[in-house]
Amino acid sequence: MAAANDDCVCADPTNGARAVTNASAIINLDHGDPTMFESFWRRIGEKGTIVIPGWQTMSYFSDATKLCWFLEPDFAHEVRRLHGLVGNAVVEERHVIVGTGSTQLFQAALYALSPPDASEPMSVVSAVPYYSSYPSVTDYLRSGLFRWFGDAHAFKGETYIELVCSPNNPDGTIKEAVLKSKFGKTIHDLAYYWPQYTAIVGTADHDIMLFTVSKSTGHAGTRLGWALVKDRDVAKKMVKFIELNTIGVSKDSQLRAAKILKVVSDGYELPNPDGMDKLFDFGRRLMAARWERLHEAVKASGFFSLPEFSSGFCTFFKERTATYPAFAWLKCEKEEIRDCEGFLKEHNILTRSGKHFGVASKFVRVSMLDRDENFDLFVKRISSLGSSHLSQKV
Amino acid sequence: MAAANDDCVCADPTNGARAVTNASAIINLDHGDPTMFESFWRRIGEKGTIVIPGWQTMSYFSDATKLCWFLEPDFAHEVRRLHGLVGNAVVEERHVIVGTGSTQLFQAALYALSPPDASEPMSVVSAVPYYSSYPSVTDYLRSGLFRWFGDAHAFKGETYIELVCSPNNPDGTIKEAVLKSKFGKTIHDLAYYWPQYTAIVGTADHDIMLFTVSKSTGHAGTRLGWALVKDRDVAKKMVKFIELNTIGVSKDSQLRAAKILKVVSDGYELPNPDGMDKLFDFGRRLMAARWERLHEAVKASGFFSLPEFSSGFCTFFKERTATYPAFAWLKCEKEEIRDCEGFLKEHNILTRSGKHFGVASKFVRVSMLDRDENFDLFVKRISSLGSSHLSQKV
Repeated sequence: MAAANDDCVCADPTNGARAVTNASAIINLDHGDPTMFESFWRRIGEKGTIVIPGWQTMSYFSDATKLCWFLEPDFAHEVRRLHGLVGNAVVEERHVIVGTGSTQLFQAALYALSPPDASEPMSVVSAVPYYSSYPSVTDYLRSGLFRWFGDAHAFKGETYIELVCSPNNPDGTIKEAVLKSKFGKTIHDLAYYWPQYTAIVGTADHDIMLFTVSKSTGHAGTRLGWALVKDRDVAKKMVKFIELNTIGVSKDSQLRAAKILKVVSDGYELPNPDGMDKLFDFGRRLMAARWERLHEAVKASGFFSLPEFSSGFCTFFKERTATYPAFAWLKCEKEEIRDCEGFLKEHNILTRSGKHFGVASKFVRVSMLDRDENFDLFVKRISSLGSSHLSQKV
Repeated sequence: MAAANDDCVCADPTNGARAVTNASAIINLDHGDPTMFESFWRRIGEKGTIVIPGWQTMSYFSDATKLCWFLEPDFAHEVRRLHGLVGNAVVEERHVIVGTGSTQLFQAALYALSPPDASEPMSVVSAVPYYSSYPSVTDYLRSGLFRWFGDAHAFKGETYIELVCSPNNPDGTIKEAVLKSKFGKTIHDLAYYWPQYTAIVGTADHDIMLFTVSKSTGHAGTRLGWALVKDRDVAKKMVKFIELNTIGVSKDSQLRAAKILKVVSDGYELPNPDGMDKLFDFGRRLMAARWERLHEAVKASGFFSLPEFSSGFCTFFKERTATYPAFAWLKCEKEEIRDCEGFLKEHNILTRSGKHFGVASKFVRVSMLDRDENFDLFVKRISSLGSSHLSQKV
């Protein structure tokens, strides 16, 4: 659901889904639109194509005998297969629940974990900096079941729902739950726990784990996420939420996602001599190159700093690998610039201010997943900030 | 959204999406699963097929410059074209908002019409019998913005949101708003205002009108609805809801629905000598035959009555046409049977009790849209109820 991070999307007349070609044009890196992956899927060609006849999957039901009656069996199969391949999450004795993006599953989990008849709403917490959507998605309906509290470190009490996003949106760090009460509940948002972003250092084994095709394969427009859920009653309540919220989840998206995930697993499990079908290798190569260029640009500008990450032994790649988060968490180091988002906006770069993540405005979150053209423009503009700023002063 | 009427779907081991073949098997007509339309789409063949390459519509955005930034232009075009053809709703000077089924759009409308800062939740009302999902979908999150009140006739006050479902789910009647305060708001749920169910007697022209592919073309599994919205600010708030709830709507579903709606319009606007491509003609013929058989079965049983409907001049078919609702609203006329749902359940026919629609348990709602095999079994079993019940007594 950090996954589905384009929460505060406004219909502003900026590039959005299109590539920016003009050197002075607005570069919108406010959202985490994962269009970087398009070139991989173009290369894959017909293998990634889905064909749906007009008479297929017309019913509400995928299998009325199953707990998650709207879950397409092929999609569930490919989810389990991919986790088996990557080794990033336990699927044994877990219910797979499909959702309209992990945003819907996050709300389903809040619904499932909140007592229906409590006199006070359940407190929802997450350690700062937290994903900017968590507060707004928790509170937009002013639910009597749950309510946003804020920073997990500041919470005193025994009952709560703690959101743990790891690797974290916005800053890419590996996080663990901060609170430890036996009455507390946790939701693990693992949207970015894939080998293109971070070393897979262990098989995650939590009560509720959320994933999404948006950040794993780049198919944000398909609006498809999944939850791995240990407890049967929690899984049933999550299904009930999705039933009430949208009466299930698009079968077309599920069929497409099943095909996409299949191509990803096939790329590693079937003969693939030139390695052209290996999504995580593609993603890692591109992210490594982008992070290198960003570090150079940041150094050239003299304005910012970036977090430092250690490497880890990745059980998927079977080697030590570095960390390449999906977002850059830029800190403005100039005393005179307090509003980093505003400063970058003057230079036609749209980012998201730290204030939306519960921290200071000298931080901004910048998407690293946009198309090559936009990323190129971004690093060039960052590099030249130092000289342009100086020339303005002079 | 009456549209998306399979709200209380439980994962019970009944037929669900599959056809029942055993004469003593459970016939599940509790939900309005529109699988009746499958045979039409099989006949249509390849013209109804959608092909989506792996690299298409990966972005969150369809057009970031538009108010509804996640709306696929082809889908919007086909929605406007189909309403123009059928003449059932005004599309000029209306915003088209796409939703994950009309259930999501219903919630988006509640969100848009409720003041964000009121001390008391807005009252949500609908005249009995009302669609059984309205109360549960309004109240499941215990929102501070809106709250289910109940029957519109019993409401005293000036501020409210009235839901007007017409033709009505469950009973097929044509409804108008009951309340008339200038501070009140209305949402028109027109899921069944299509020529296969009722005469198109005028072009509906309301502030918020909801539709869905589920009941117009039979594609329930695609989870796609649309709203026609007059006021720009209301439309913007509905878009905001969908942004927070699911960050937009499946592009795959929108592409598929665009194709499906195109085939329906083409069926009437392009040469089609044998009339095989005319969805509304297909639907009307089948519904007419089913309603005739149901009336005979009900008469043979001696247990029930059905509402009576007048015919009307249909501006689409350009002739007087009868009313064939998507649900049969059966009333049990035997004094000794108070719980009609329970009585039919003893005979392995699953229906939905009147109590869920705000009225007495001697009513049940029965789907008329299931596959031929299930409908056949249903009418046969209803016909034989009189004799089997008598033989039990003897």
